Amino acid sequence: MKTLAAQVITPEDLLKHWQGHRTLTRNTIEAFPEKDFFEFSIGGMRPFAQLISELLAIAVPGLKGIVNREVEPFSEKATEKLIFKAQYLEKWDEATEEINKYWEKLSIEDFNENFNLFGQYEFPINQNILYFIDNEVHHRGQGYVYLRALGIQPPFFWER
Amino acid sequence: MKTLAAQVITPEDLLKHWQGHRTLTRNTIEAFPEKDFFEFSIGGMRPFAQLISELLAIAVPGLKGIVNREVEPFSEKATEKLIFKAQYLEKWDEATEEINKYWEKLSIEDFNENFNLFGQYEFPINQNILYFIDNEVHHRGQGYVYLRALGIQPPFFWER
Repeated sequence: MKTLAAQVITPEDLLKHWQGHRTLTRNTIEAFPEKDFFEFSIGGMRPFAQLISELLAIAVPGLKGIVNREVEPFSEKATEKLIFKAQYLEKWDEATEEINKYWEKLSIEDFNENFNLFGQYEFPINQNILYFIDNEVHHRGQGYVYLRALGIQPPFFWER
Repeated sequence: MKTLAAQVITPEDLLKHWQGHRTLTRNTIEAFPEKDFFEFSIGGMRPFAQLISELLAIAVPGLKGIVNREVEPFSEKATEKLIFKAQYLEKWDEATEEINKYWEKLSIEDFNENFNLFGQYEFPINQNILYFIDNEVHHRGQGYVYLRALGIQPPFFWER
């Protein structure tokens, strides 16, 4: 009964942690005015829509690759034709369900196996997944500065 | 031999993950011009020095509280008299050592116990620690925007 041994963090809790962050990111998307979501930027950085395209291109494609052990190149093609914030939110919600679905297929042992994410990042799967989360927190933090610069109060960081 | 069971992430790997982020945050502090570290801000947000004061007030005091199960209120007093970036870097390096020292005292079982962090946040210890890391990634992401706005290239996100 190996899976019943004490865990630093269980797969269920790690999923809940990630999805909690994803809820906060969704609320951050919602906080942007339509036009600024696609156009506002500071210091030559990407607008928030492009950062969200990156996050969407990582989450489900990355997790699907891990679960199926199928190496596919990174691509933001899935969002390149989106022109409304509502379309991004729809993709976000679809990804939420897909993540839950693929997550069920991960065993505790899987987290310690290596996977060559997008054919570029050969690391243990637990590191790949922590990277998904960190990268989201990093870019969302940037979105918070955009919102502040626009005079908009971002969502509370601890509300997930 | 419970502690030898497969782990989603081991305590050693979680420490390495956190310290890797802390190395990147240190490099981000280094990238700031002295004056801008203390003064530059966007949209009424705190300058990077104040964000770093918060991170320093969380990391060691939080972890020490967890290890000793001693509830102390949150306080940024330790950095309130610092006026040079080099002093912050010194505090940062001291914290790196202290974190390594306290971390050794955590058992896998500890991560699942509740702790009332700073007398304000009653959560399982694994959630407290993930919060330390997320909060650092969040604020460092904001520092990246400050650097970009200043025309300075931030450190690469994947260099830890």
